[in-house]
Amino acid sequence: MITITKQEAAKRLLAQNNIAILMHRSPDGDAIGCAYALCMALRSLGKQAQPLCSDPIPAMYSYFTDYAPRQDFIPDYVVSVDLADTQLFGDALASYRERVDLCIDHHGSNTGFAAEGYIDASAGACAQIVADIIGYMGVDLSVPMADALFTGITTDTGCFRYTNADAACHRKAAYLIDSGARSGMINRLMFETKSRERLALEKQALETLTYYAGGQIALIALTAEMMRSTGAADSDTDGIASIPRQIMGVKIGITVKEKENGVFKLSLRTTDDVDASAICQTLGGGGHRAAAGCSVSGTLQQAIDAIVTAALAALEKQT
Amino acid sequence: MITITKQEAAKRLLAQNNIAILMHRSPDGDAIGCAYALCMALRSLGKQAQPLCSDPIPAMYSYFTDYAPRQDFIPDYVVSVDLADTQLFGDALASYRERVDLCIDHHGSNTGFAAEGYIDASAGACAQIVADIIGYMGVDLSVPMADALFTGITTDTGCFRYTNADAACHRKAAYLIDSGARSGMINRLMFETKSRERLALEKQALETLTYYAGGQIALIALTAEMMRSTGAADSDTDGIASIPRQIMGVKIGITVKEKENGVFKLSLRTTDDVDASAICQTLGGGGHRAAAGCSVSGTLQQAIDAIVTAALAALEKQT
Repeated sequence: MITITKQEAAKRLLAQNNIAILMHRSPDGDAIGCAYALCMALRSLGKQAQPLCSDPIPAMYSYFTDYAPRQDFIPDYVVSVDLADTQLFGDALASYRERVDLCIDHHGSNTGFAAEGYIDASAGACAQIVADIIGYMGVDLSVPMADALFTGITTDTGCFRYTNADAACHRKAAYLIDSGARSGMINRLMFETKSRERLALEKQALETLTYYAGGQIALIALTAEMMRSTGAADSDTDGIASIPRQIMGVKIGITVKEKENGVFKLSLRTTDDVDASAICQTLGGGGHRAAAGCSVSGTLQQAIDAIVTAALAALEKQT
Repeated sequence: MITITKQEAAKRLLAQNNIAILMHRSPDGDAIGCAYALCMALRSLGKQAQPLCSDPIPAMYSYFTDYAPRQDFIPDYVVSVDLADTQLFGDALASYRERVDLCIDHHGSNTGFAAEGYIDASAGACAQIVADIIGYMGVDLSVPMADALFTGITTDTGCFRYTNADAACHRKAAYLIDSGARSGMINRLMFETKSRERLALEKQALETLTYYAGGQIALIALTAEMMRSTGAADSDTDGIASIPRQIMGVKIGITVKEKENGVFKLSLRTTDDVDASAICQTLGGGGHRAAAGCSVSGTLQQAIDAIVTAALAALEKQT
């Protein structure tokens, strides 16, 4: 992949007239925000442009996604946004794996599958890069474009909570708000709305909360029966997995989730001084230092015993 | 009160040598952040300065509060920060009610109790104003000053979630991060840390969650017995009061909290189309359009019946 600048990326786009914009499967706020903002900008210049995704766009983003992705669009030029790897294209976009002309991304792990690309791993959200490129294209941001890009930034930074919400990220957010982004409405929609099912699951999950090692380890168990009885979706478990580590004094937060056939998915979140990835590696898993995972077969109790034993060993090694 | 500019406020402070900085009672992140940042800035210029508060500074702010407020300090000049009304001075600072020389605030409701003042009601946090004044004083921000001011901004905007997190607010946050504010650590400390007691209370509270009007009203009840059995503090209930309104489809979220002697405090949070203040006024209370409260005497069931009846009436009037 040949690395080009944001200005050059803008020039490439200006030179084209039939442009497909690819998102990764299970698209998140940053992927959808980037694809739709860029599509709106290209259409505002009279070009044919179409966002494409293997999965449907969740309804919660309907405040800026006026049209659905279409698979029957035949492009002359293919751009990918927020897409690190062709493995994330999904089945419906498999035919584009060797056909990406321009890759715009913020993942340091980007595999360089495109002909040309601009990758900035220091950007908290890919939407920050897309905002610049739209600017270099000479397009003034409309309110829906600003909404889309603000959605990308706020979702990828956990509403400016994570360390990737750096000074450049806040400045881009300010620019988007000045351009009309409805930040208050977007944040409320993205971060303050829980389904009844999610809350019911949260209640049952809290009933399983168990402490070990004098409160340094906290564990929550989500059984298949809980998922059934509450009607909660798989996506409802994401927020719950962050609960145990949020408890004061807890260094290792564990969520055990029952999958089918006696398999349990273990998710670990740790504070700075404990390596979650190292603990999960002892059980054949892996991940990042602060967040990692692994799978264990057997009964729920066996899964809990296995991960708690590994976590206790890590705490002991530390002291 | 004579209104002066931020530049003039900086000049007044530069001309003084013994300066008391007053915070409101039950001080929050913005009050504490403003008082300590200003105190550090004044001390860095070789001046005597002291933060003063009727209540203790919570331990969670210890990453920038190196010294405790002292009541025995005798100032030549008295400044108040983030303080709207002398009623909020608390008992220990009562003697300063007629003695405030300079008031720095962002509350539009400020009663003008000081000799001179700078009030900017458009600022999401008072810390944004104090950051400017410190700049006009010619002081370069240290890391603890930047930490203190960032704490003020992030706590008063709910980690940039509320509508008061406007473009100016994000730009000031960017400036503070550039000045060394440890934003990731601060946000985690302020927003991702829950006590075991808080979580135990949350679990019991979720067990009382009840829906009315086809899910347009959600109610949570916190009894005195729950507070006792979980050991939760009064401050632990703040976050819980926001839960009912976060549920998808809920227009009126209600939290009923038992106080002593058969009195129940009712807290309402509503979506845009329902006036919480109007509902609470029918029971002798009041507040803002999106958040209001009132008190009802009797049994828990009577308190619930009273507020649910008032809420149902408001929904019916609306349709």
